[in-house]
Order: sequence, then C-alpha cells, then structure tokens
Amino acid sequence: MSSIKVGIVLGSHNDLEVMKVAKTTLEELGIGAELRILSAHRTPEEATGYARDAEGKGIQVVIAAAGLAAHLAGAMVAHTILPVIGVPLSAGTLGGLDSLLSTVQMPPGLPVATVAIGGAQNAALLAAAILALSDPELNKKLKARRGDMRDKVLAADAKVRGA
Amino acid sequence: MSSIKVGIVLGSHNDLEVMKVAKTTLEELGIGAELRILSAHRTPEEATGYARDAEGKGIQVVIAAAGLAAHLAGAMVAHTILPVIGVPLSAGTLGGLDSLLSTVQMPPGLPVATVAIGGAQNAALLAAAILALSDPELNKKLKARRGDMRDKVLAADAKVRGA
Amino acid sequence: MSSIKVGIVLGSHNDLEVMKVAKTTLEELGIGAELRILSAHRTPEEATGYARDAEGKGIQVVIAAAGLAAHLAGAMVAHTILPVIGVPLSAGTLGGLDSLLSTVQMPPGLPVATVAIGGAQNAALLAAAILALSDPELNKKLKARRGDMRDKVLAADAKVRGA
Amino acid sequence: MSSIKVGIVLGSHNDLEVMKVAKTTLEELGIGAELRILSAHRTPEEATGYARDAEGKGIQVVIAAAGLAAHLAGAMVAHTILPVIGVPLSAGTLGGLDSLLSTVQMPPGLPVATVAIGGAQNAALLAAAILALSDPELNKKLKARRGDMRDKVLAADAKVRGA
Amino acid sequence: MSSIKVGIVLGSHNDLEVMKVAKTTLEELGIGAELRILSAHRTPEEATGYARDAEGKGIQVVIAAAGLAAHLAGAMVAHTILPVIGVPLSAGTLGGLDSLLSTVQMPPGLPVATVAIGGAQNAALLAAAILALSDPELNKKLKARRGDMRDKVLAADAKVRGA
Amino acid sequence: MSSIKVGIVLGSHNDLEVMKVAKTTLEELGIGAELRILSAHRTPEEATGYARDAEGKGIQVVIAAAGLAAHLAGAMVAHTILPVIGVPLSAGTLGGLDSLLSTVQMPPGLPVATVAIGGAQNAALLAAAILALSDPELNKKLKARRGDMRDKVLAADAKVRGA
Amino acid sequence: MSSIKVGIVLGSHNDLEVMKVAKTTLEELGIGAELRILSAHRTPEEATGYARDAEGKGIQVVIAAAGLAAHLAGAMVAHTILPVIGVPLSAGTLGGLDSLLSTVQMPPGLPVATVAIGGAQNAALLAAAILALSDPELNKKLKARRGDMRDKVLAADAKVRGA
Amino acid sequence: MSSIKVGIVLGSHNDLEVMKVAKTTLEELGIGAELRILSAHRTPEEATGYARDAEGKGIQVVIAAAGLAAHLAGAMVAHTILPVIGVPLSAGTLGGLDSLLSTVQMPPGLPVATVAIGGAQNAALLAAAILALSDPELNKKLKARRGDMRDKVLAADAKVRGA
Repeated sequence: MSSIKVGIVLGSHNDLEVMKVAKTTLEELGIGAELRILSAHRTPEEATGYARDAEGKGIQVVIAAAGLAAHLAGAMVAHTILPVIGVPLSAGTLGGLDSLLSTVQMPPGLPVATVAIGGAQNAALLAAAILALSDPELNKKLKARRGDMRDKVLAADAKVRGA
Repeated sequence: MSSIKVGIVLGSHNDLEVMKVAKTTLEELGIGAELRILSAHRTPEEATGYARDAEGKGIQVVIAAAGLAAHLAGAMVAHTILPVIGVPLSAGTLGGLDSLLSTVQMPPGLPVATVAIGGAQNAALLAAAILALSDPELNKKLKARRGDMRDKVLAADAKVRGA
Repeated sequence: MSSIKVGIVLGSHNDLEVMKVAKTTLEELGIGAELRILSAHRTPEEATGYARDAEGKGIQVVIAAAGLAAHLAGAMVAHTILPVIGVPLSAGTLGGLDSLLSTVQMPPGLPVATVAIGGAQNAALLAAAILALSDPELNKKLKARRGDMRDKVLAADAKVRGA
Repeated sequence: MSSIKVGIVLGSHNDLEVMKVAKTTLEELGIGAELRILSAHRTPEEATGYARDAEGKGIQVVIAAAGLAAHLAGAMVAHTILPVIGVPLSAGTLGGLDSLLSTVQMPPGLPVATVAIGGAQNAALLAAAILALSDPELNKKLKARRGDMRDKVLAADAKVRGA
Repeated sequence: MSSIKVGIVLGSHNDLEVMKVAKTTLEELGIGAELRILSAHRTPEEATGYARDAEGKGIQVVIAAAGLAAHLAGAMVAHTILPVIGVPLSAGTLGGLDSLLSTVQMPPGLPVATVAIGGAQNAALLAAAILALSDPELNKKLKARRGDMRDKVLAADAKVRGA
Repeated sequence: MSSIKVGIVLGSHNDLEVMKVAKTTLEELGIGAELRILSAHRTPEEATGYARDAEGKGIQVVIAAAGLAAHLAGAMVAHTILPVIGVPLSAGTLGGLDSLLSTVQMPPGLPVATVAIGGAQNAALLAAAILALSDPELNKKLKARRGDMRDKVLAADAKVRGA
Repeated sequence: MSSIKVGIVLGSHNDLEVMKVAKTTLEELGIGAELRILSAHRTPEEATGYARDAEGKGIQVVIAAAGLAAHLAGAMVAHTILPVIGVPLSAGTLGGLDSLLSTVQMPPGLPVATVAIGGAQNAALLAAAILALSDPELNKKLKARRGDMRDKVLAADAKVRGA
Repeated sequence: MSSIKVGIVLGSHNDLEVMKVAKTTLEELGIGAELRILSAHRTPEEATGYARDAEGKGIQVVIAAAGLAAHLAGAMVAHTILPVIGVPLSAGTLGGLDSLLSTVQMPPGLPVATVAIGGAQNAALLAAAILALSDPELNKKLKARRGDMRDKVLAADAKVRGA
C-alpha cells in the first residue's frame, strides 16, 4: 500500500462531503492521501504544526480547502515550502467570491496554487500532476485518465449526433 | 507617559504611510500605541507570538492592517481573545475588495472588527471607543472630538450657505 | 442576575431568527443583553434615542443588524461613542453585498466594527471580547470557549482520521 | 427672485465641486436651490432637522449626495415625506459601488429616488421634472432643454458625417 | 373614482406578480394607476407612444419595471419629461445587478429615479410623494402611513422586549 | 468606391476617439462604413429611424457603442432584424461593468452580439466576418489578416527568444 | 430538407438541455443546425478540427456554449473566420459572471459575438439574422417572428388592461 | 548552465515587462527558464504545440500568463499533463477580475494552478516549490529565501519600532 504523499486539510468538518472527492480521486490514481480537519483559526497550532511537519513525514503536496475568509492555504504555505494547493469553497452568501479572493490573492513570496471554487477533483489532479514529475507510472495513469475523459466526451458527442 | 495599550500591526512596510494615521490618532487621544510590521505569512511565528503575548504585555486592543488576501487580522484573533480590529487595505487592482472580504468574512467563533477599506483613523477611534469604557478621561476626549467634527461640518455648512 | 450590558438592535422583525443567536451567545457567557427592534428609517427617533441613552443606562456595547441599505449601525454610532458592532444581513438578491458595504464603508470619524454577513455569533463574541477587558471572569470564559472550539475541531479531525 | 424649492444636501465639503452642478442646473431652470453640508453621521441633529423642517419651509424636493456608506438620502427620507433624490458619489476605492448600493437598496416604505453615480446634473433635472408637474413655465423649459440636447447631438452627428 | 395619475409599465408579463404591489399600494392611497405591459424591445412603438402620450392623458408619473438589460425606464424618459421611476427586477442569474446598473446609470440629461431591486412598493410610494406635493389629502395619507409603519415596528419591538 | 455596408452608431461624441478604430479597421478591409452619433435617449427618433431605415439603405450590420446604462444596441435591434453588434464602453467609475451588462443581458427574442468592453476593433472584425460569408474577396482578406496577426506574434516570440 | 448551416457546439453534455433551445429555434426558422459536444479542454483536437473544417463543410455560423472558464467560443474563433457566437452558461456558484467575462473579453483581433448568460434562443436568432442577409425567405420569417413577439406582448397588455 | 525546466508563456508581448520577474526569480534560484510569446488565439498551433512538446523537451512546469479572457493556461493544460501555473494579468478596465475568473474557474479534469492577479514572482516560486520536490539543492535555496524574506520583515519591524 502507498504511503501518504498528499495531505488534504479542511478548515471545517462541513467541508468533508465536498472534499472527499479529492481523496477518492487521489486513491484512484494510487496516491496515498489523508484527510485532516485543521482550522487556521480554531486549531492554529495543529494547522501550523501540520504544515511544518509535512515535509519531514514524506508529504509532498498539501491541499487546503476552506470557505469564507479562507486563510487555511495561506497559513499552510507560511510554514512549508511544499507546493500548497488552495480550494476555495462556497460557504456563505457570496457564492465563494470571498474564499476565492482570500485564497488566490497571496502577496509576493508565498504562492498558493488556487483551483476553481469547489474544485476538489482538480486539486487532486494538480497534486497528481506534480507527483507525476518523478513517477512514470503515475504519468501514464494521468495520460490514460485524459484519454478516458476524451472518450466520454466523444461518446456524448456521438450520442447527441445520433439523436 | 502612557504605556502601550494598542498594538498596530502591519503586514508589510508598504502599509506604513496609510497606517501611521492610526498611531497619530491614538496619540492625539493620549493612548499609547506601537506600530509593528509582522507578516502572517513571512514572519508567522513573530505575528503569532505578538498576538499570544499581547494580553500579558498589557495591550488591550490589536489593530491589524493588510492588503490582498489579508489574513493578518484573522491570524491575530486566532491567538488572542483581545478585541482585534481589521483594516483592509487597497493593495492590488481590485480596489481592496479582496482584502475586505478576506478580513471581514471570518467564520463563527473568531470575530474581526472590520472597518472601511483604508480606514486607519476609524480603526484607531474604534480602539479608543473600546478603551473609553474604562477610562472616563478618554470618554470625554472622544465626546469632545465628536464635537469638533460636528463644528467643522457646521463651519463648512456656514461657509457654503454664505457663498 | 446580570444587568443589560449589550444592546442588540435589529432593523426589522424579519431579522429576529438570525440575530437571536447573538443574545443566546451572550447569555451563555453570562452577559446581560436585550433584543430591540428599532429601525433607522421607520422609527428614527427611537433608534436615535436608544443610541443616545445607551451609555447612561449602563449599556457598554451596541450590536446593530440590518439588511439591504443597512444604515442602522451607522445611525447608532452617530449618537453614541460606545463601540458599535454592525452585522450585515443578507436580505435581498445580492447575497448581502449591499448590507456589507453599507455597514463597513463608514467615513472617517465614525467607526462601525463590522463582522461577517449574517455573523450574529461573532458580533456577540466581539462584544464579549470588549467586555472581557474589564471582567476577568468573562476573560476566562472566552478562553474556555476557545478551548471548546479547539476540542471540537480536534474531535472532528480524530473522527476523520479514524474513518 | 425665486424662493428655495430644492435643498441640496452634501455629506461632506469634499463633495462640493461635484454637486455644484446640481445647483447650477436648477438655477439655469429658474428653480431656487440651496446647498447645505449636513452629515448623517457628524451632524445628525442638523441633518434630521433639515429634513423635518424642509416641508414647512417650502422646500419641495431634497437632493442628498454622499459617498462610501452613503446614508444621507436614507436619513433624509426617514424624516420627511417629500421626494428625496439620492446621488451616490465615488469617494473610495470601489468606484462608488458602495455608495450606490447604500443609497438605492432602501427597505420597503422609504423610497430614495437614486440617480447614477456622480449624477449631479440628473438629480437636478429629476427635481425639475417633479416641480414641473405644477409649473407650466418649467415644463416648457424642460422641453426646450430636451430640444437643446437633441440639437447638440444632431450637430455632433452632422459634424462626424461631414468629416 | 380617481383618474389615472400613475402609469405602471412592465417589460414582460413575467413581472406582473411582483409589480401588482405597486398598483395596490397606489390604490390604497387613492391614486389612480394603470398596469401596462409594454416592451422597450418587443413593442417599441407602443412603449414610446405611451411615454409620449402620457402627459397629455393626465398621467403625472411613470413607473417602469424590467429585468436583465433593463432599458424600459430609459426608453420612457427619452420620450417624456414626466418623472420616470425605474424598478430593476431580478430576472436572471446575477441577482438583479444587471437590471440595477442598466436602470440607474443613465447619462447626463435623462434621469431615472431608481428604487431598490424588486422595489415595487417603494416605486409606488415615491410616485405618491411626488403627487402629494400638490395634493394635501395625499400628503396626510402618506404621513399617516409613516405613522402606521412606525407603529408596527414599535409593536414588534414591544413584543420582542416582552419575550 | 465601396457603398456603406456597416453603420457605426455612437451614443455620444465622447465615444468618437475609441470608435474611430472600428471605421478604420473596416476601411482597411475595403468595407464601406459610416460613423453616426445617435443617442437612444437624446435623439430617440433619429436613432430609431436609423435602425428602421438601415436595411433599406443597404446597410448589413449595425455596430452600436455606448457607455453607462448602454441602451443603444438594444434600441437598434428593437427596430431592425439586421445583426447588431454592441460595444460596451467604459465611461464612468465602474470600469464598464455597467455598460457590459446593459448591452449583453438582452431578453429572449432580441440578440445583441456583444464584444469586449472598448472592443472597437473586434466589433469591426465581427462585422467583417459576417459580410465575408457572401464576399469571397473579404474572406481572403480576413484570412490574410489572421496570418499577419500570427506573424506578429511569431516575430515577437522570436525576438524574446533571441533576447 | 436544409443542409447544416449552423454548428452548435457545447463544452459538456450538461449543457444539452439549455442549448437544445438553440437548435429548436433554428429549425423553426428552417435553418439546418447540428448539436455537437466538443470540449476546448477535453477534446481540443476535435474542437479545433471542427472549427477548422466548418467553413469547408458549408457551416456559416458557429454557436459555442460553455460555463465556468468558458474558453470554447474563443477556441473556435482562433481556428475559423466564420462568425462565432458565444453563449456563457451559469454553471458554478457565481451566476455565470465567470463564463460571461471568459467569453466576451476577447483580445483585439478575435471577436466572439456574446449573448446573455444562458441566451440559447438569442444565439440562434443572431445566427438567423446573419444568415438572413443572403436569404430573403429567412428575412421574412424573422420579421414575422418579430410580429408574433409583438402580438404576444400586445395580447398580454390587453389582458392586463382588461383585468 | 542549467537546462530549461520551466516554460513561461505569455499571451502577448504587452505582458513582457510584468512577466520578466518570473524568469528572473527562477534564474536567481538556478532554474533554467525560457520566455515565449504564444497566443492561444493568434498562434493556436504554436501554443498547442508548445504544450504538447514540453514534456518531451524536459520542461517540467509551464507558467502561462494572460489578461482579459485569459485562455492561455487552459489551452496549455488541455495539451499536457505537466503542472500548469496560470497568472491572470490586469489588462483591461476590470482590474483583472476577468482574467482571474477565466484562469481559475477551470472545469473538472483540467486544473490550472492559479496565482494572484499579476503574480509573476509567485508563479516562479510555485514552479520552484514543485521542482524542489526532487532537487534538495533547490529545497535549501527556497528555505533560505524564506529566511531572507523573514529577515527583511524583521528589519522593517526593527526600523519602525526604533522610529
């Protein structure tokens, strides 16, 4: 069985359903991943500690998902030089515009690799793309997945053409 | 001379000119204040440490000012139960909408008292209003300041009526 | 029993359900609070009078909640030097962007301590943080509450790790 | 000479240059107007008083102009049943989106007739349209003005066609 | 029975339910009003003709309500010097931001008195305020209505205080 | 010399500088075009008349450019079945978001082909693409222009690679 | 039976229900149209190929519909000089603001004729307007359709007047 | 000298000044990088080809920067499984909100690692963080850079404390 390469950190247990997709996607690709609930504001020491210890534990990519004033990805990247992927979630009444801007508009020096609002699957695929740089097997799987995606669109196209 | 009651924390030295107004305003009211540059992302330990130690050092209110994905006020409030005032600054191309949402949209449990974009003076006056609850002298000064404000508007009104 | 320290003012009885949380939160912390319905526009004299008399009645913090063109917090702060906390509510079709900007973008001289859209609980906790400056018992309660919050996240984290 | 029919109220002397256009436009139409600086927040009694006394003094329309969290027009309409025209001004970093929403999104029961951001001239013309309902002379002037406007566009069109 | 003083023009029959409130409100105040469906785009001649003939038929105020790229109020004011009130409606996926900006941001020379998104009642009350300038009976009714509004808030306040 | 195939209509002479690019672009492609200043609000009859007569005069595409509450393109399409291209212009303080939404969010039945804010050149090229459907010579010119565009990018790329 | 004149390209099969309206509308007008599912990102070769081959196959207008970061219309226009109509769809949590800006804000040189968010019917009518330039029969049908639209509004108006 | 590991692709030569920072930052870290001007719309074959050949040429990360309807990063990721970093640029009148949404809101399956508007330096640092996963030397350099950043803030803090 694979070791944990990707840490998926959620700011709240409310985000669990949306973000399980990230774990499932990674596992489909044979990438070890763990889900953690660590709040930048409610458990700052644990969140900070997770980021600081991640590299030492063999984690290679951190995915951080949060809504509203989404500081979690930024808090992660402040304590690790590992690539940090931010997933803004739509948690309030503004459709996630708040979490998107809170996640992506990081100041110079501390990048957060931000994906779309609610983009759990894409966060996982971005992590996979990063890991695939040194994992030829994963590289093949990602290419195959692209092929599958393509086939599904072609099949849908064939169906609509036949309709 | 007065001791430090209000800590004014800036995320970057670029914010210094705008935020000096907060210190000046507090000093005009006889409130001891210090300006600090502490980044939630570049010096997270120092920022965290400042928030954690603030109460013990006698600080009663923390003002935190930052632009872009403005996490500083949120990082402060995660480590202190002192009132934290957030000042969103306009630092990028979105007119401060990013910093406003990053500062104000805090999740339940961790309030940031947010003032207007660039609202350095109001941050100081809010801190003063809080301190005035236990400082009758300051209470009087704030009321006098309101009177002065009122007089200036009345004078401008008189001038425009006479014009 | 505790006397009234926090006045929670609503612009409309429609806001009652959302804002009861503020009263409950304050009462959990042993802080006397009253709910009032006072409209900046429909009962301006009463709203104004409430703000003007608040300090004399022993109220120390005013929480004002309103939706749409949310003027209530601003109307309060125009008539008192007490700290005024504004809660923008999502009442129309714009997700509360209107009430957020109407509440937070106050001109220099008159600060409103704005919390998140719909942030009833945070308004209460901010009021508590202000009152705790001169109430060691409350200070302890707030710290304990932070501990509880932390424990809940840790428990959720433990559960997700075990899953 | 004509008596004062329109009160033009500004929230700050900073708004004077923009809003003089309203007075000039009204005077061109022979409508008596006065400019006043009355802040909803800094001189609330005077602002309120102005609104309350306006009808008695023979004022028929109130124009209220303000930037940021623009409460002035709303404060006027809370104290008079005269038609109140709101002019949102662009005073901060958000291009006037804040003042527009603060002015126009009034709750049921208290309408503010809002014109465009910075729309000083249109505020005056709207006031004139209201007054013209009972002033056949003014009615004619407004129609003539429309004709002039039309002629200017036709002249510009002729020039560009000839170019 | 009263003659038609206010024309309420809708851009689509879809807007009927929302806008009936305007007619009801006017009728409660004894003001004759008619509802018309006239599209700036689908029946431009009829819409234009309505605006052009309105003054001659004794109409004193036009209320125009539309969603999306809401041009109806602007089309009305281009053909009449009567006061035109615009009601932006929320008809698409942007919460009415499109209709608000399309209605309120009129160029210099052609004011539309814009009320809140979906503000049917306020449009009626604004029309009434305009008509009340020359109708002492209506003036009294509007003041009474304000009193009723005030009483309802006071009653709600009394109820919440007693709770 | 070519006859007029494209009518370029501007809501104001202020838009002339920006929109001359549309005429120049069309002329470069050998397409006859005329610039007209016709306001949907100030000269509605002329604007309407232009749209109604366009087809009869041999015009095949109408380009309409306006800022703020940009109704001009919509007013055109209400009176012609010719393709109407809308160019939202940035004329106020909102960066053209107002004119974009006023132009593009047309109701079902009346399409406006909207291009980017300030997109004078693209409006011309879209008109040309439409005309090229029945003009093989123009078709070739458009393809050549694409080639030129491509060559310029390739040259810039070569330069940056060599740098 | 008519040959295919309009290609309606969808970025995803999720967009099928909304966009079938475009096909139906075209067929009502006797215009041959085909629906295709071709993703700019998942089947880029097929999407690109479709655009490149469209002209040769006799297609005269391409309609491209997509949500989120809607690149499909832009990808089409990069490979054909045929008129390309973009339909931004509301697919995420931002009400289609993302797809609108991604579709309409094309750089100089590559116009996309953008219609309203979700504007499937208008995309079809715009295509028809373009085709009608060289099809007198279609020209008549479009004028008749305008007449029908007009009649429906008049009927609704008559009904509301009679009510 | 180092081989090319990072391809920095710009949609236009106008973006060169802003994006040179990315190249400089990478070179400071000893990472081979090349700047290319490749437009998703004007040179789609070259852009596509670059993405398709990148992996074979040894490129490990692609940075794509564009303004307006920024499709470049999406076009890259459609043709490679390498990590693609998107840099939205502020090129029009909307402050880069258009390019941000066009870059970040990618559909499931095709992630773009988006950084802040204008975030050239952060794009480079994110690429470096990815490369550092298999480059211990680079890992050290990144940590040293963090230390330098920290030192600069501490120095600024020391200076402001001494002031």
